[in-house]
Amino acid sequence: MRQSLPALVVKALQQVAGQDPVALHEPAFNGHEWDYVKECIDTRWVSSVGKFVDRFEQDLAAYTGAGYAVAVSNGTAALQVALLVAGVEPGNEVLVPALSFVATANAVSHCGAIPHFVDSDEATLGVDIPALARYLDEQTEQRHCQCYNRTTGRRVAAIVPMHTFGHPVDMPALLDLAARHNLTIIEDAAESLGSLLDGRHTGTFGLLGTLSFNGNKIITTGGGGAILTDNKELATKAKRLSTTAKLPHRWAFVHDEVAFNYRLPNLNAALGCAQLEQLDGFVAQKRQLVDRYLAAFDNVPGVSLYRERPGARANYWLQTLILDQEVADQRDSILAATNDAGVMTRPIWELLSSLPMYQANPSMELTGARSLGQRIINIPSSPELVRG
Amino acid sequence: MRQSLPALVVKALQQVAGQDPVALHEPAFNGHEWDYVKECIDTRWVSSVGKFVDRFEQDLAAYTGAGYAVAVSNGTAALQVALLVAGVEPGNEVLVPALSFVATANAVSHCGAIPHFVDSDEATLGVDIPALARYLDEQTEQRHCQCYNRTTGRRVAAIVPMHTFGHPVDMPALLDLAARHNLTIIEDAAESLGSLLDGRHTGTFGLLGTLSFNGNKIITTGGGGAILTDNKELATKAKRLSTTAKLPHRWAFVHDEVAFNYRLPNLNAALGCAQLEQLDGFVAQKRQLVDRYLAAFDNVPGVSLYRERPGARANYWLQTLILDQEVADQRDSILAATNDAGVMTRPIWELLSSLPMYQANPSMELTGARSLGQRIINIPSSPELVRG
Repeated sequence: MRQSLPALVVKALQQVAGQDPVALHEPAFNGHEWDYVKECIDTRWVSSVGKFVDRFEQDLAAYTGAGYAVAVSNGTAALQVALLVAGVEPGNEVLVPALSFVATANAVSHCGAIPHFVDSDEATLGVDIPALARYLDEQTEQRHCQCYNRTTGRRVAAIVPMHTFGHPVDMPALLDLAARHNLTIIEDAAESLGSLLDGRHTGTFGLLGTLSFNGNKIITTGGGGAILTDNKELATKAKRLSTTAKLPHRWAFVHDEVAFNYRLPNLNAALGCAQLEQLDGFVAQKRQLVDRYLAAFDNVPGVSLYRERPGARANYWLQTLILDQEVADQRDSILAATNDAGVMTRPIWELLSSLPMYQANPSMELTGARSLGQRIINIPSSPELVRG
Repeated sequence: MRQSLPALVVKALQQVAGQDPVALHEPAFNGHEWDYVKECIDTRWVSSVGKFVDRFEQDLAAYTGAGYAVAVSNGTAALQVALLVAGVEPGNEVLVPALSFVATANAVSHCGAIPHFVDSDEATLGVDIPALARYLDEQTEQRHCQCYNRTTGRRVAAIVPMHTFGHPVDMPALLDLAARHNLTIIEDAAESLGSLLDGRHTGTFGLLGTLSFNGNKIITTGGGGAILTDNKELATKAKRLSTTAKLPHRWAFVHDEVAFNYRLPNLNAALGCAQLEQLDGFVAQKRQLVDRYLAAFDNVPGVSLYRERPGARANYWLQTLILDQEVADQRDSILAATNDAGVMTRPIWELLSSLPMYQANPSMELTGARSLGQRIINIPSSPELVRG
């Protein structure tokens, strides 16, 4: 008797992940997590300043090759502050992939700016650059070296490429396109810590890049994020904006602009320092996991494991199945069967342009994003799945 | 030879705090901090959901007597979300004491609303209610049960009383005044966890109240805050708004409004649970410290220790000296002498209305705030100063 596709997927997943219930992604704490966190408690330096905050920022800069890293409370805060220091103003439009987590668009909204949605393609799971190039030529015009939306009349200030599940967007091509259209690039590298393109770390191609250390990410601080940049002035501004813009003084409280309390506590930075020490190991484990899944899915018809493209070294943060168009209608059956079997899986996000608060926003045609949105399933991706 | 006033103050402080360098406020971790934090790491539940987040919210509600508590990433976030769920809209004015930490006004600005500054008096260090009553009668008018500023034409939507250094504002009088003028009350209780008025916890008089657990507060989570309310609907909205407004679903990512990532990580909530268990002890220690300082300052002319008024049970978060008007010109000499001697002291904040970004904001006469602003000095206040 021939097995159904959902049953075959369950079988392939359990071949790799075992028969016990398995989460989509769990952090691994096998390094100095205890030592560093205990040191915070023992020394009573748990809060918004402390040696682990400084060290985490230095370690992140060293790891990514960015000139500067500024630690903040989470990835959404990182992106909001990066957009602000990049000069995005209320009423500007910012190009954002419709196929992303809601935080990418929310951070734009928190600046008073307007997310303008762009398409994604299967080549990178990120911005469809050729389609975007055609769209910008039609939809926008340059005035005084600034890009304007012909329909809305609003300035299009920036673009936020997001490196989906750790797969790098084609940044050289995007840098080229953005330069031609006077768009600032702020990379949303929330999912791609450890991912390289042509040997260069994601998040360091744009004027600024942002990271996330939420509990489901490749390394975690509980909650946390960071801003990367090579520009010292922007790094200084980002630090000021995320720490209430207090002027240095022995005792006086003078703050010289409306700013935020987006500090990363020392307690969380301590966890981050310990996690970052293990990042290369996590990436290696996740890359081994690809091979195991490839073998397991070899005989499952209509289902492919998403793989990095040439030049990319992906962190494979979330392992990704893509269904052929012919079996796309079975996605929900596969999600139900796998989750019923205790193997946690999930679809990619709903298109941001279809969420109630963003339905009226400007958007290009989303042919690629719509297709990917119906065909992607994320499968268990914890580094420890390849431990045994 | 008669000693100078700064020298007398140094001597009095060292009589209580000893000869070694002493901080303004340090947390004490003598309870289950390490046990609970270690449990998070061992179980790998460090992030934005987890049992300590739920427990911390329940414990805070139980401790304060609020119907509901919603834990968030810090006190600024708590106040922003509280203002939003209370219905404050962009372009509204919100009455805020000019004598407060910058976060009180920034949270209003983050809602797109406009801080409108009000005076403080020496009776409570908070809102000068009789002066505010006269000001509102002159400056505002009621239309369709809403309060409007006659000069700017903008709606005045709310008032944010702040319980300075843990000393409760006269809430019954303020409730009365706010009702007459159709103002919603959101209490900034960032400094007053553990402070009661007529047996009732600060932060539970208004429609909503907010707390902070920054590292310098009476209890700390590293960074953190909470929203208190008796209104279930508002509590639910606050939780939604602070957690990206994701709709519950087994796997789908649907979010139905522009919301925030203001989650308190489980790791930080764990610290908070352990700290909250010790709060009554901290309040008791701080209240004993008052007596020690009273004795030490008994013979220092022109300098008084600020004390709670009848009906109030203050947490005495920061111990406060008030200089008589005649010696107010010696404030900076006293700050310099004490800090030079290794005894950390600091003045109260600059008036918010004098900061560059708020100088053009609407404001009532700030006679009281200006006088207090020149005469207040905070002195070492750690609970452990009375341990020995």
